[in-house]
Amino acid sequence: MKYNYLNNLPLDEAKSKYYAYLKEVGLSGKTETVPVNDACARVIKNAAYAHICSPHYNASAMDGVAVKAELTFTASERTPVTLTPADYTVVDTGDPLPDNADSVIMVEDLIEGENGNYEIISSVVPWQNVRQVGEDICMGDMIAPSGTVLTPSLCGALLAGGITEIEVIRKPLVGIIPTGDEIVPPTSNPQKGDIIEFNSTVFKGMLGEMNAKAKVYPITPDKKELIKAAIEKALSECDIVLVSAGSSAGRDDYTSDIIASLGTVLVHGIAIKPGKPAVLGEALGKPVIGLPGYPVSAIVIMDEIVHDIVAMYYGKPQLPRETVKATLAKKIVSSLKYSEYVRVSLGRINNKLSASPLARGAGVITSFTKADGVLIVPQNCEGIEAGEEVEIRLNKPLFEIENTLIVTGSHDPLIDEAADFLARKGAPFRVCSTHVGSMGAIYAVRDGLAHLGGIHLLDTETGVYNKSYVEKYLPEGSAVTVKGVGRVQGLMVQKGNPLNIKEFGDIKNCRYVNRQRGAGTRILCDYLLEKNKLTPTEIDGYHNEEFTHTAVAALIAAGNADAGLGIYSAAKMYDLDFIPICNETYEFLIDKSYLDNPMVKAFLDVIYSDEFRKRLSEMGGYV
Amino acid sequence: MKYNYLNNLPLDEAKSKYYAYLKEVGLSGKTETVPVNDACARVIKNAAYAHICSPHYNASAMDGVAVKAELTFTASERTPVTLTPADYTVVDTGDPLPDNADSVIMVEDLIEGENGNYEIISSVVPWQNVRQVGEDICMGDMIAPSGTVLTPSLCGALLAGGITEIEVIRKPLVGIIPTGDEIVPPTSNPQKGDIIEFNSTVFKGMLGEMNAKAKVYPITPDKKELIKAAIEKALSECDIVLVSAGSSAGRDDYTSDIIASLGTVLVHGIAIKPGKPAVLGEALGKPVIGLPGYPVSAIVIMDEIVHDIVAMYYGKPQLPRETVKATLAKKIVSSLKYSEYVRVSLGRINNKLSASPLARGAGVITSFTKADGVLIVPQNCEGIEAGEEVEIRLNKPLFEIENTLIVTGSHDPLIDEAADFLARKGAPFRVCSTHVGSMGAIYAVRDGLAHLGGIHLLDTETGVYNKSYVEKYLPEGSAVTVKGVGRVQGLMVQKGNPLNIKEFGDIKNCRYVNRQRGAGTRILCDYLLEKNKLTPTEIDGYHNEEFTHTAVAALIAAGNADAGLGIYSAAKMYDLDFIPICNETYEFLIDKSYLDNPMVKAFLDVIYSDEFRKRLSEMGGYV
Repeated sequence: MKYNYLNNLPLDEAKSKYYAYLKEVGLSGKTETVPVNDACARVIKNAAYAHICSPHYNASAMDGVAVKAELTFTASERTPVTLTPADYTVVDTGDPLPDNADSVIMVEDLIEGENGNYEIISSVVPWQNVRQVGEDICMGDMIAPSGTVLTPSLCGALLAGGITEIEVIRKPLVGIIPTGDEIVPPTSNPQKGDIIEFNSTVFKGMLGEMNAKAKVYPITPDKKELIKAAIEKALSECDIVLVSAGSSAGRDDYTSDIIASLGTVLVHGIAIKPGKPAVLGEALGKPVIGLPGYPVSAIVIMDEIVHDIVAMYYGKPQLPRETVKATLAKKIVSSLKYSEYVRVSLGRINNKLSASPLARGAGVITSFTKADGVLIVPQNCEGIEAGEEVEIRLNKPLFEIENTLIVTGSHDPLIDEAADFLARKGAPFRVCSTHVGSMGAIYAVRDGLAHLGGIHLLDTETGVYNKSYVEKYLPEGSAVTVKGVGRVQGLMVQKGNPLNIKEFGDIKNCRYVNRQRGAGTRILCDYLLEKNKLTPTEIDGYHNEEFTHTAVAALIAAGNADAGLGIYSAAKMYDLDFIPICNETYEFLIDKSYLDNPMVKAFLDVIYSDEFRKRLSEMGGYV
Repeated sequence: MKYNYLNNLPLDEAKSKYYAYLKEVGLSGKTETVPVNDACARVIKNAAYAHICSPHYNASAMDGVAVKAELTFTASERTPVTLTPADYTVVDTGDPLPDNADSVIMVEDLIEGENGNYEIISSVVPWQNVRQVGEDICMGDMIAPSGTVLTPSLCGALLAGGITEIEVIRKPLVGIIPTGDEIVPPTSNPQKGDIIEFNSTVFKGMLGEMNAKAKVYPITPDKKELIKAAIEKALSECDIVLVSAGSSAGRDDYTSDIIASLGTVLVHGIAIKPGKPAVLGEALGKPVIGLPGYPVSAIVIMDEIVHDIVAMYYGKPQLPRETVKATLAKKIVSSLKYSEYVRVSLGRINNKLSASPLARGAGVITSFTKADGVLIVPQNCEGIEAGEEVEIRLNKPLFEIENTLIVTGSHDPLIDEAADFLARKGAPFRVCSTHVGSMGAIYAVRDGLAHLGGIHLLDTETGVYNKSYVEKYLPEGSAVTVKGVGRVQGLMVQKGNPLNIKEFGDIKNCRYVNRQRGAGTRILCDYLLEKNKLTPTEIDGYHNEEFTHTAVAALIAAGNADAGLGIYSAAKMYDLDFIPICNETYEFLIDKSYLDNPMVKAFLDVIYSDEFRKRLSEMGGYV
């Protein structure tokens, strides 16, 4: 089997090598001229200078009468001045000042007399209530320097300055070529082995955010000539070309060789994780980039490299990204071989901003959907301890991140349902839920990492849920548990129960799928094992750990396992048989200081509402 | 003359009255179904649940061979295991795992043997190097709650979860009707009295930022029937209707009456400044809003009211806006009649964030182009002292604001030119320049409000520029002046010099236009008056003050004045005659702590570059 090792160039070196080369071959944006009233958000090529003044004539700033100010100088309550029709001209706001006038008296200050006369009891000074020529903009003044992104008010200022058309950088057109024999267009019914092509949609969206246009080409199979032809076509039509997948060094990875045959490969392999197998190349003076097939790897390359190239195209500097300091919530171990991009969720609890690492697999797109930011672990660093201060590169405005209710703990779909109820009610905050198990929830509430923690922890000695754990792990009186739901736990087994599983002890005869350590359901499993006088080593699959009820159900439905503990709604969703084991008390643990927090209150209001109870009974398995 | 007084409803009351009414008449967004690969940035109507798992089959996570893990359990360096072709299946990343396999051995770990055999020296455990069904997304899991704005990665997650189409809120179509007899479409050659219609462009841009579409109708003259017909047409085609201008209570202000005749006027007149003469109405169940004609007033109503209505249409909450605490740099006096929206520029100097109020006129669109945020002075407040801490609602990300070189002081176009040079060189910061006069620059540098201050202050006793002022006003050794440019000051007079002005003393026979107090040019003027034994009262127009050389030139060119002091380049720009008076030393004052600031250094590098000197000589008047 063919296997070529990739380079492992540190990111900064890869960037400077590539960008210097692109600069040398003259990468720069083409321009076009557009009407200013259609130019909002565009990037102007050159500095814009006003053609005319605004106002371009002396304009009345009020409704009233225009006069020569000197006529009014003696006016007072004791010595009113009478203006005859010959002395004034009626003007509305915006009207030009007549040549013989230099000021305006407001309509509110006019006392109507006879024969069209007006009496006034206060004077005006020259240019009072007049917008003199150039009050806002003077002809020749620079309205915006080169490279400015036009805001709505800047477009207004350009028009006010008599500029009706403007030269802007053309949005770069970026060609995206999805490749791979196993890749299929989006479908809700893929066949085994089909990989749904969603990367191009992610890239297209990201390019839109970078102010670039995307052209997605048809999926090209893993045939060298076909991919080469597709790249040549894209090169003839686009400003930048992205080849999705095939960028590594496996037997079907052609991207690097093809780019080399059409132009130059500057870098193949970057010391970042995810994102290592990227190809940075050039052909016909245009950037051609091979993106890794794994979505998360590709997103890192889009964010690190393609983002910069689009900025170069616009002639924009590589601005430092917005970062924020946060406390790392969980230890990270990293490799000295790479700098690692760890997606994190952020939460502000009691004025402390915490960063919780999300799933690190390169295939886990949901780690990006949930990511508030990225922690970049440098190449020379083996890991970072929990509690250390780290720098997080933000994916969203910090403001939005801080306006978030953080619910953590034991997985139950009811948390997502409650978040949805809140969203539909227009709650002015978002809900971020993470599944760290019931013990994780206890630690998170104790350490100020979550507002609410969902827990269902069986005290195997007393049979009472939660109470003894809270007493043991939390300082006395620091937190309270509030009522959540009752729910049925049981064994989920294949439809029709082919192994004829009747009770928990029967799992010794099948392939089990377990929950992670610290999960309430795992503690229940261990309790039931002991009760059935079984040991973990007797259970096939005891070490196959999943984080959610649905993940356990999915593996049973897929045939990877025969049985697993979980809640009824998960079994129902996957059309599995369900053998009830016990009723649990699922409660919410809350630090006392948040009991009056409006987000916490709104969340609990939903949980206790009749409407929500109705939804739970539709889902099934709640008591 | 007709004049009806408006209401003066506090903003919060106006909002709750209007929004409650709109809720009652059932304002809500229409929906449409779009392909997910075209849904980025759209707002989903309902919660989205995964249709399928991702991966939807057990997939190899590596290039290698798929095996039954138990075959490998005994493998070690001492006891290698040999795999025959019957034991393994070659797989690439993403390939489905064969039914008889439960793990993958990476290609890097295979030692090629004879007859297609492989030797291995380490074991794999079940599911190692396999992406099990549902690793990323489990069927039935909620991918996003109702009302979520789809990010690129969320679109990817939806497709990965088998969702190919999704119901999103249709972008609201907002009709904009510009009205007014004096209004003309954008032109670079307007006639006297023509007002260039740029408000609709500003609104269109702002609506784009709110995720709404705009339809701009033709300009409608101030005829009641015509405006009514235009509103009826817009009501039949759009979801929200905005009528630009005519919203006050003057003789040509019909908006309120027309809306009342078509539906309901809830509010006419809000206690905010600018923005007071707004009409909040409803017809055919749709919001119809009369916007003030002054651009800044209209922008405030767009930002306060229309913004919220678009959010209501999307079913989104009225989120609190992002604010920041800053120190007010200059005293503000406000009225008890209104809450006032003061545009401010922000600057971070030595870790102190300062807010400097910008021009407050309702017609000054450039006060919005320069505004980093808005300070809302409450209705019950008469003013705020300099140095007080204030809350600023941000118009741009704070991060962007902080990455700014603040240059203040005496007006000279060379500052804008230098900013443009920096932009074209791709400097990774922006330049914000304000014109506060040379004395303003001294105070700004002293008070930590600017990085650099441009000054040209003549010591009338010694004839030396700047030195004595710096010594007098700044603590010894705290700041230095660095070389700027030499420039020619002189009298700008009408083309052909019709009043035959020969020297400064001749201004006593003409209408003069002066610079503001604290400007170096004003100090020069006062010095020259004294030298010519003239007093301010002898000078017609001495109190007519402008802030820039171009503003003075514009007034002379417009015939508002006959002469004013200024620099050669301004006279040249306005085709005025120029009578040189003296050569000035224009220098930059810098607090010592910023001498090594990279932004300051980059700015000075430009000023001293040959390329920039060349540009100055094109502009003329620099020596």
